[in-house]
Amino acid sequence: MEDQLVKTSENQQKQPIRCKAAVCRKPGEPLIIEEIFVAPPMPREARIRIICTSLCHSDIIFWNMQGPPAIVPRILGHEAIGVVESVGEDVTELTKGDTVIPIFMADCEECIDCKSTKSNLCSKFPFEISPSMIRYDTSRFTDLNGEIIHHFLFVSSFSEYTVVDIANLLKIDPAVPPNRACLLSCGVSTGVGAAWKTANVEPGSTVAIFGLGCIGLAVAEGARLCGATRIIGVDIKPEKFEIGKKFGITDFVHAGECENKSVSQVIIEMTGGGADYCFECVGMASLVHEAYASCRKGWGKTIMLGVDKPGSKVSINSNDILFQGKTLMGSIFGGLKPKTDVPILFKRYMDKELNLDEFVTHEVKFKDINKAFDLLVKGECLRCVIWMDK
Amino acid sequence: MEDQLVKTSENQQKQPIRCKAAVCRKPGEPLIIEEIFVAPPMPREARIRIICTSLCHSDIIFWNMQGPPAIVPRILGHEAIGVVESVGEDVTELTKGDTVIPIFMADCEECIDCKSTKSNLCSKFPFEISPSMIRYDTSRFTDLNGEIIHHFLFVSSFSEYTVVDIANLLKIDPAVPPNRACLLSCGVSTGVGAAWKTANVEPGSTVAIFGLGCIGLAVAEGARLCGATRIIGVDIKPEKFEIGKKFGITDFVHAGECENKSVSQVIIEMTGGGADYCFECVGMASLVHEAYASCRKGWGKTIMLGVDKPGSKVSINSNDILFQGKTLMGSIFGGLKPKTDVPILFKRYMDKELNLDEFVTHEVKFKDINKAFDLLVKGECLRCVIWMDK
Ligand SMILES: [Zn+2]
Ligand SMILES: [Zn+2]
Ligand SMILES: [Zn+2]
Ligand SMILES: [Zn+2]
Repeated sequence: MEDQLVKTSENQQKQPIRCKAAVCRKPGEPLIIEEIFVAPPMPREARIRIICTSLCHSDIIFWNMQGPPAIVPRILGHEAIGVVESVGEDVTELTKGDTVIPIFMADCEECIDCKSTKSNLCSKFPFEISPSMIRYDTSRFTDLNGEIIHHFLFVSSFSEYTVVDIANLLKIDPAVPPNRACLLSCGVSTGVGAAWKTANVEPGSTVAIFGLGCIGLAVAEGARLCGATRIIGVDIKPEKFEIGKKFGITDFVHAGECENKSVSQVIIEMTGGGADYCFECVGMASLVHEAYASCRKGWGKTIMLGVDKPGSKVSINSNDILFQGKTLMGSIFGGLKPKTDVPILFKRYMDKELNLDEFVTHEVKFKDINKAFDLLVKGECLRCVIWMDK
Repeated sequence: MEDQLVKTSENQQKQPIRCKAAVCRKPGEPLIIEEIFVAPPMPREARIRIICTSLCHSDIIFWNMQGPPAIVPRILGHEAIGVVESVGEDVTELTKGDTVIPIFMADCEECIDCKSTKSNLCSKFPFEISPSMIRYDTSRFTDLNGEIIHHFLFVSSFSEYTVVDIANLLKIDPAVPPNRACLLSCGVSTGVGAAWKTANVEPGSTVAIFGLGCIGLAVAEGARLCGATRIIGVDIKPEKFEIGKKFGITDFVHAGECENKSVSQVIIEMTGGGADYCFECVGMASLVHEAYASCRKGWGKTIMLGVDKPGSKVSINSNDILFQGKTLMGSIFGGLKPKTDVPILFKRYMDKELNLDEFVTHEVKFKDINKAFDLLVKGECLRCVIWMDK
């Protein structure tokens, strides 16, 4: 009898769930909140009830994009926190009721990259802009007409329920406030990690950050945690200095208002030779060159975080590379290994070291998700948290 | 009486020395061996009697160059060993009779860079292609008509006597054979250092080297010393593989003969994903891109050593930088600090670990210095040592 109950419960979990999702049906047009079906998880997947999700700049980029790799209909969203509703076969790491965050970068924990401390690029499940699940070339979403709705970044959190691969899920302490935890899914982790893991910022050093959006401010926060003593923000909006101070920004360069001087000239003068670390967070390949010029000869590191258009080139004078002793690095997800490094960031938040609170400037109900898009597009918010159950 | 003798001797040392030098009077034409005057050293300089000197590719480049920063008449040569003939005022580090090698990269031992373990770019005496001494904007050479002859790389070793700044001189053990010691002045140190200090090659790793001239082979030797287990040479001349084996090359890619495949495709296939470290030693900015493509995503490092024309650009797809977790670095003088790291290379040679012997493929008398140029231009030698007293 008890066996039979368990079986019934298992069978129920094998059913699709009908729930609400915010679907992107036309690029750049408001998301449509509609009912969809979320299929049960396949082996090594989990179905997740989303608690809250936040809006990241990459959602905006793919919402606006007209051609591939953008695709419609699609459920966007990749910064989130949720609770495991059910798991597919062969899942021992998670169970129903676990609190998790999805991370678009896979960590299979068994390939050469995932086992290495040097890489965060899983070679079993390479990062790509796919319309499907990471392990299978299929979708778990259908609309009420039975048509497929596509996934985004292996997460698709703008839905009451979603399915995520085990490789993309990190189990976390349910005590972390959900509207803080979701930030570590992507943006804040990316910035903090770039300073901590990619650049390995040394105590007492000088940092310059190009672009003070959420990512750039998270770099500042990471640099502050690493003990940088001078953190220079560079932005075209002078009001960013005040916001930046909350995350450790100590100096500001108003780009575009440097009186016949380039930003790199200003930074070199301010620092007596250049910053020890320069971070490009805007997503302009041409700005990488300026960041490179702003960093200290002999040991300066330039870290590129911003995503520019496919095909854009970073071009640097060969003699500048050769004769200046500088390093150029890319940083995806801040160089963090999802399953070993992100838990350390959670701990630092719970220990009141990492400032997550100030990143959340707005919170809205799920039905108002398009307001979050408006706010981020207008540059009026850092992170807007979207609550699913409200 | 003894005081008077000392004074006489000091006064003699304050006189110009008349000796033979090989002067570059017209770009690309044979050097002319003629008598010149070498003025006494100024404060913080030493006058050196050259024992032997070897020919480096940079000498050829500046010998052939038609315009600035090339200049005539000039005394080329910067790989050498010599004995201190006299010192200028304020020199306590060296005394008459000391055996020294000149190093074109200054190490003043007191600026922020020279005191830092992270930089080898002295900020008191920045590297430049200057026609003068490093500390004064003057020359110590005149011809018999009283006309100035210019310096090269602060060394000018194609002369029986030269004057070098204390910042450019390293005192060494006179027990080192001179025709080996001179190689550590520039080329071999540059290559070995690039593997050891700039890249910090890890034991068991895979290395790819683009261009198997003296510098590329020295990178191989450095990688071998660091414990790399697979060292792939890439060259357009297949006969380089045999020479390369002497310096640890284990595999060879014949560039230009890869059947519709790029060199990076071949290396990625050979290594199952790319080399851990790639070194560009040819001096073609476009090849840096190929080296970058050949290195392992997740942790690969590309190190640029080759000098391309001023104004040439290294251009890399911004997404390749961002999404592949790779690092691009330049390496001048192999990232070595002249006064702390080069002595370690001398020790490793004396301990029979570092292979210098195989680099010396030819030796000529000073009067035959133009033969050394012929040999290196034709690619028929690695290092040709030129003996001054023979
Ligand atoms: Zn993996
Ligand atoms: Zn994101
Ligand atoms: Zn110095
Ligand atoms: Zn040289």
